[in-house]
Amino acid sequence: MNIRVLTLFPEMFSALDHSIVKRAQDDQHVILETINFRDFSTNRHGKVDDYPYGGGAGMLLTPQPVFDAMASLPERKRRIIVMTPTGKRFSQRMAEEWANEEELVFLCGHYEGFDQRIHDQLVTDEVSLGDFVLTGGELAAMTMIDAVVRLLPDVLGASASHEDDSFSTGLLEYPHYTRPAEYKGYRVPDVLLSGNHARIEKWRREQSLKRTYERRPDLLVDASLTDEDQRYLDSISGLSND
Amino acid sequence: MNIRVLTLFPEMFSALDHSIVKRAQDDQHVILETINFRDFSTNRHGKVDDYPYGGGAGMLLTPQPVFDAMASLPERKRRIIVMTPTGKRFSQRMAEEWANEEELVFLCGHYEGFDQRIHDQLVTDEVSLGDFVLTGGELAAMTMIDAVVRLLPDVLGASASHEDDSFSTGLLEYPHYTRPAEYKGYRVPDVLLSGNHARIEKWRREQSLKRTYERRPDLLVDASLTDEDQRYLDSISGLSND
Repeated sequence: MNIRVLTLFPEMFSALDHSIVKRAQDDQHVILETINFRDFSTNRHGKVDDYPYGGGAGMLLTPQPVFDAMASLPERKRRIIVMTPTGKRFSQRMAEEWANEEELVFLCGHYEGFDQRIHDQLVTDEVSLGDFVLTGGELAAMTMIDAVVRLLPDVLGASASHEDDSFSTGLLEYPHYTRPAEYKGYRVPDVLLSGNHARIEKWRREQSLKRTYERRPDLLVDASLTDEDQRYLDSISGLSND
Repeated sequence: MNIRVLTLFPEMFSALDHSIVKRAQDDQHVILETINFRDFSTNRHGKVDDYPYGGGAGMLLTPQPVFDAMASLPERKRRIIVMTPTGKRFSQRMAEEWANEEELVFLCGHYEGFDQRIHDQLVTDEVSLGDFVLTGGELAAMTMIDAVVRLLPDVLGASASHEDDSFSTGLLEYPHYTRPAEYKGYRVPDVLLSGNHARIEKWRREQSLKRTYERRPDLLVDASLTDEDQRYLDSISGLSND
């Protein structure tokens, strides 16, 4: 997969040098390139921003440097993504879709964001990391890149897995415990020490269902539930009415 | 505000050296410290992870290094935050609340995450950046730190503003345009060039309402709307039924 990032702060992406994305690059699963669109400014001072028409605080990114930076890229089948709080919310499903693409291009805004003509003419996907506001698109882009790259074939390797991830099953993940069995008086649940695989699976499924019911009942609507799952949910929702 | 981050990858946080967070540190609005909890491992190889009880792929972070790293911090009134997809979703409202705290401590997981006893005994806030899975908590922590720090008094400065941000008003933000008035045949809306402040305000409010109605109607439930807003929404929802 090719990943290209248009940004005024390419140095920020060095954070990915200490992550799975670096390993994916070393193993040639990913080619990541950052492009500073300031380099494409035809203004002799390298200016890329200007005041908003109609007044208001903050500066906007002007069309010319971004249009020209995009025109410099080889034409490919690709998604061109801009991060904005007004976009569609990023999700695990979106990450899974993007993991099938040949190329992703991320446009990172800054200040008050891009002139709307950049959104209208260049972008295929307006995406929001969540209902909050950031100073720029860089951290959002790195987050999305991490979420996508870990799903690429062979990137996580045999020692890890994304099959039991939260959202992959439609439910939140169950609690995890490791050694020691007791730490400062806090014990691992007995069932996990039992060696009884069937009981462990049942406990984990029930913990996933319970957490999802308590914390994110909205996810249960789309989760694929067995009759046994439904009986368990009925039993705990009954208890919670006591 | 003090911000402390417990992480196995403190180098990743250098990304913030190119951001508003660096400026906030330089201006002494924020003290940011990263702590590598591997340094607290009593294992002579610095081991911090172990296999999950009950089987399953991936490695978990063991209690001892994290408990000891936390015990090394001065006791303060603070939030202790862990990033996990099973937590409460991060939001602009949460960022606004956290901006009033004296200290925030972020525990960054990696691999399959923390032993559950770390969540149960040390953490005040389990928070999810969104419905997706990352390889670690670092990018999520940096994102939350950026969202909080820009809200601290005097950090953004007079040249920028967060008062019109998406979510601050309960609505998505209106489109922004800057010079030139025409670029490659794409024109800025006439109203923004009119100099008529009242018309511009009305257009912007209507654009915010329209976007929110089209993209995130869920937000309208909690937005504070005037009678005029409501009439405008009625008019566009009528049109969309044609």
